[in-house]
Formats: sequence, C-alpha cells, structure tokens
Amino acid sequence: SRSLNLAVIPGDGIGQEVVTEGLKVLSAVLPQDVKLETKEYDFGARRYHATGETLTDADAEALKQHDAILLGAIGDPSVPSGVLERGFLLKLRFLFDHHVNLRPSKLLPGVATPLAGQPEIDFVVVREGTEGPYTGNGGTIRKGTEHEVATEVSVNTAYGVERVVRDAFARAQARPRKKLALIHKNNVLAFAGHLWTNVFNKVAEEFPEVTTEYMHVDAATIYLVTQPERFDVIVTDNLFGDIITDLAAAVSGGIGVAASGNINPSGAFPSMFEPVHGSAPDIAGQGKADPTATVLSVALLLRHLGHDSEATRIEDAVSADLAERTGKPARSTSEIGDALAVRVAG
Amino acid sequence: SRSLNLAVIPGDGIGQEVVTEGLKVLSAVLPQDVKLETKEYDFGARRYHATGETLTDADAEALKQHDAILLGAIGDPSVPSGVLERGFLLKLRFLFDHHVNLRPSKLLPGVATPLAGQPEIDFVVVREGTEGPYTGNGGTIRKGTEHEVATEVSVNTAYGVERVVRDAFARAQARPRKKLALIHKNNVLAFAGHLWTNVFNKVAEEFPEVTTEYMHVDAATIYLVTQPERFDVIVTDNLFGDIITDLAAAVSGGIGVAASGNINPSGAFPSMFEPVHGSAPDIAGQGKADPTATVLSVALLLRHLGHDSEATRIEDAVSADLAERTGKPARSTSEIGDALAVRVAG
Ligand SMILES: CC(C)[C@H](C(=O)O)[C@@H](O)C(=O)O
Ligand SMILES: CC(C)[C@H](C(=O)O)[C@@H](O)C(=O)O
Repeated sequence: SRSLNLAVIPGDGIGQEVVTEGLKVLSAVLPQDVKLETKEYDFGARRYHATGETLTDADAEALKQHDAILLGAIGDPSVPSGVLERGFLLKLRFLFDHHVNLRPSKLLPGVATPLAGQPEIDFVVVREGTEGPYTGNGGTIRKGTEHEVATEVSVNTAYGVERVVRDAFARAQARPRKKLALIHKNNVLAFAGHLWTNVFNKVAEEFPEVTTEYMHVDAATIYLVTQPERFDVIVTDNLFGDIITDLAAAVSGGIGVAASGNINPSGAFPSMFEPVHGSAPDIAGQGKADPTATVLSVALLLRHLGHDSEATRIEDAVSADLAERTGKPARSTSEIGDALAVRVAG
Repeated sequence: SRSLNLAVIPGDGIGQEVVTEGLKVLSAVLPQDVKLETKEYDFGARRYHATGETLTDADAEALKQHDAILLGAIGDPSVPSGVLERGFLLKLRFLFDHHVNLRPSKLLPGVATPLAGQPEIDFVVVREGTEGPYTGNGGTIRKGTEHEVATEVSVNTAYGVERVVRDAFARAQARPRKKLALIHKNNVLAFAGHLWTNVFNKVAEEFPEVTTEYMHVDAATIYLVTQPERFDVIVTDNLFGDIITDLAAAVSGGIGVAASGNINPSGAFPSMFEPVHGSAPDIAGQGKADPTATVLSVALLLRHLGHDSEATRIEDAVSADLAERTGKPARSTSEIGDALAVRVAG
C-alpha cells in the first residue's frame, strides 16, 4: 500500500489555523489505500524565542525523511525583520535546493480582483529559487558611519539558470497555449541579463512549439495590470519573481488564494508547499483566515507527488466554493475547510 | 531679463513629435521677459548607427552649458538592447549625478485606470538614480559555457542614500499629508537593507512631522493596486524604483501621462526631464503619440528651475484637457499640443 509521509510546519500567526484545514482537505481527498502520516515541527517565532534556533542541522536531517513539507506561515513582529526569513525560509530553500519556485495565478469565477472588467487570468510563474540577489553575498564596510558602503551581489550560473529555464519550457509545452515569457532587466543588468537571455534562447531551440517573448521587469508590471491575459508561463530570476508574484497574486484574487511550491524537481530533497500570504498576526487565532491558499498549496503538493487526479479534485472544489461565495455571509476558517473537505470527498 | 537655455534631445521614434509639442507649450507658458533658447542634440539610434557614438565627452561638455535638458525618448529595435540605455541614458544620469529620479503619479479626473472603482491616486516616487544595481558593477566568467557565472553588484553608500532620503523627507514635509514610505527588501537584502533602513530612521528624527512607514517591495506592488491612495511620498532604491514607477504609471492613467525628472538638486549639473514612456517605434511619425507626458515633464522642469506658477499652469491645463477627453474623437499629437498651448496662454 502507498503512503504519504508529510512534514507539517504550522509556523506563526494564522499558520496553525490554515494548516489544520489544509490537512483536513488532504485527508478527505486521499484514496483509502494511501496511508497519510504527518509529523508536526515547531519552527517559527516561539521556537526562536525559546531556544534562539531557527533551523538546526538536526532539523534539516529530520525534514529530509519526509516526502514533502506543508508550511503555514513563518514570521512575527516580535522577531527582528529577516531573522526567520533568512534563518528558516531561505535557508531551507537553499539547503533543499528548491530551485523551482512555482506560483500559479488564476482568477477564478466569483473572485474579486482590483482590476476593472474581470480579465481572464491564468498563468504560472516559475521563479528561480536558489540564486540571484538571494544568496546572501555582499557585505558592509564602515557600518553605521557616514562612509558606509553596503553591497548585494546577485549570483547567476549557467547551471542554475538552465535548469529552471528548462523546467519552465517543459511546463509551457504541456499547457494549451504553449507560451513562455522571460522576464529580466537585461538592458541594465547586462551580465546576468546576457546569461539569462542566452540560456533562454538556447533552450528554446529544443522546444520549437513554445512561443517565446522577452520582457523587462518594469514593463511586465504594466502588462500584469493592463493585459494579464497575455501571460501563460513566466520564467524569471529570484528577486523579480518575488516582486511580480505578489503583484500577480493581487490581481488574480489576492493573497488569500495564492498558492506556491518550493520545488526540487529531482526529488533529491523534499519540496515545500505554502500559501503566498504571511502569518497575519493581527487576525491570528480568530478563525478569520481564509485557508484557501493553503488548500491550493496542498493541491500543488499532491500534483508534485504524482497524485494528479486528487490535485484536480481540490482545485475544482475550490473553484466551486469560490463561485458560490458572492453575497453570502463570511465563514470561519474551519467552515471553509469543512466545506472544501465535503466537496473533495463527495 | 531672464533666460532659459534648454538642451533638447528629441531622440528616437515618437521622441521628435512629443518634444515639439512640449516646446510649443513651454513657449506659450513662459512670461515675455524670459528668453527661451533651445539647442537640439542628435543623440539616439541614428547618431549611433552613423558614428558608433552614444554620448562623447564633448557631448557631455556641451550639455553642461544648459540650464536643463528636455528628452523625448531614446531607443530603437535596430540597436542591441542596452547599448543606448547604458551608453546614453544611464551614462548621463551618472555623469550629471542625477540622484533624485522624481516620478509623480496622479490619477486625474476623466483618465482611465485599469483599476476598478477609480481610486484617488496622488503620490510621488523619489527613486535613487546613481547607485544600487545600476552601477554596472559585476562581471562574467566562463562566458557562453555551461560553467558561466554572472554577477551584478548593487552598490549602496551612506552618502548616496542619505541625500536622496533627505530629499524625499523634504518633499513629504512640504505636502499636506506629510507621509513617507521607504520601500526596500530589507528582510532579504540585509546589507543594503540595513543601510537604507538605518539612514531612513536617522533622517526621520529631523522631520518629526512626517509620518513614516516601511514596506517590502513585493508588498508594495500589492498596495499599489489595492490601496494606491495610501501613498503620499515613496523613497526607494534605483531598481525597485524602476519597477514600481512603471506600475504606478500604469495604475494612474498609463505611461501616456507619466512624467519624470532626473534631478541634480544641487544644480551642479543640468537636470533632465523626460516622459516615462519609450520611443514607441510602431507608431512613430504618424501623429498618434500623446504628448501629455512630455508636457508634464516640461512642468517638472519649470518647477525645478523655480518657475512654479508656470508649472502649475501647465498641470492645470493638462487636467482640464484630460477631463474633457471622454467620448471625444482621438486627436493628433499636434492637436493635443495646440490645445494645451492655448490653455496655458489663456
Ligand atoms: C519572506 C521572504 C523571504 C519571501 C521571499 O522574498 O522570497 C517571500 O516574500 C516570498 O515571496 O516567499
Ligand atoms: C531605459 C532604462 C535604462 C530605464 C531605467 O531602467 O531606469 C527606464 O526603464 C526608466 O525607468 O527610465
């Protein structure tokens, strides 16, 4: 019989609440013969305050034993900015070589968008996850003085760029429209830009059916609000991907429904799935958080592990649930989770 | 009697057309006793193809003799990406130390926005113009091989950050709402982020009336489409500023009306004013380009040189013109320029 051995990291703020619902829906959708095992980990602000630790070597070893990781949210105002982000989130992306940071954007029927005229939005961003300005390279001299100089180094390798570009081409090839846009700023960041553009054009030769385009990141933000329907698959650098996926989430229904996967396609390390939203400490513990983004992250997790039909059932359940929301009173976190669990089981 | 000695750079594509209208409105608004002298320069694609030059030392010396520079647009598909951007636009920003890149965003009555519900948008972005990832620092090894490594170095100095932060605080102080947001990514880009945050907080002590906030750049893109009315003045790094000002232009009426100034507040070198849009070669020479962004850039130019009431007259004329556009047939570039010239003179 098959099994799914999941590491669960509720984290901070609303993390616990949304993860509970994610697991509820996961249990409801899994076939009888798949044995679900979960182990909870206490990473986040509480652990940091208690022990000073964010992610130890032993923690990483333990996480490696799982098939995948489900994360709620990490971050709390009581911890200095950057400590948990770099000490946990980014550390794990780098340790587990999560080089494909997958962020789908789909404006589902019935979902509000800040854009006028309810455009058709259905694209996926493949954000590089282990290079660019996220490597921690750089430094400071004469700190705190009027002569301080601080640098940040974006590191880009042919190896790192090619694998994520190839992944994006394969995803574009598998979609009906077969379109792929490279987003960068190659007119200014000429060293990295040349590498990205060159690798992109080289890999493109292997995918003659995929229609490609190049777009500067600044222009891309314009198109994301004026013509979001033009995008199918986007591949981009770590920092540009960070920026445009928040914008993409905003225009396609908000971070309440935005899911993401930190994926190691080789399977050498477990991949991690998490809602794009943060820990929202202001509404934590009140049953107000929308667990939809976490539930959709569970769908990405299932698809990554080959459970395609279960992933689709979750996505269909979410679409149906969202379509019926308009005009109804707001439901609690667990009510939404219950409704989705019923739908995927039924 | 007073004089205004202007360098005019029509540039490429629609540049010539929009600059002509900008100058038309400038002539119409200037008081009789201000003598307007203009000298045209031929920078851009044609000059590059003819001579291989983008901006020579002699060119820079000549430009220095002017009170200010009005630029149409630089860029043409016949020139490899980056050559004119780095060889002319960025070169001039660095040579003339244009460290305050000023980009106002105001959604004027009657102007279409991609956002639902016609929000109130009236903010200005103060983008740093001479540091960050724009310095050209970085390099490539093993170019073209599977072992290529390309780096881009963001350079940030206390000197460079403090002067632009101080400029932004002064602008916030002078506005009714007195709000200033620092936009960065200090949870990931910790070296530069620490410098920016530290300097920002230090300068804030000198401006107790200004309300401040900090926002990550990714979150800022969300707010720009969901709550753009929350912004008053924004100060940010060169690259983040590049990205969010295109988004800001898109939500506040499009790049057809977005003006910008590359400003050296000390006056040591002439400042340069230009529309945010590019050369739009697809519509060049057809009289279809909207000169409004250039005309608003002329207003920024006038205000920079101390001609405040003339600047305001141009801005009022543009507001009135835009307010009357809805439902009317499209006008040509020169018809719009004529209408604005009549309004500012009247
Ligand atoms: C929390 C932060 C480190 C992270 C990032 O910048 O990648 C977040 O914004 C994200 O997009 O997952
Ligand atoms: C053309 C390019 C070099 C420039 C920039 O990146 O600054 C442009 O996008 C701008 O915003 O003025």
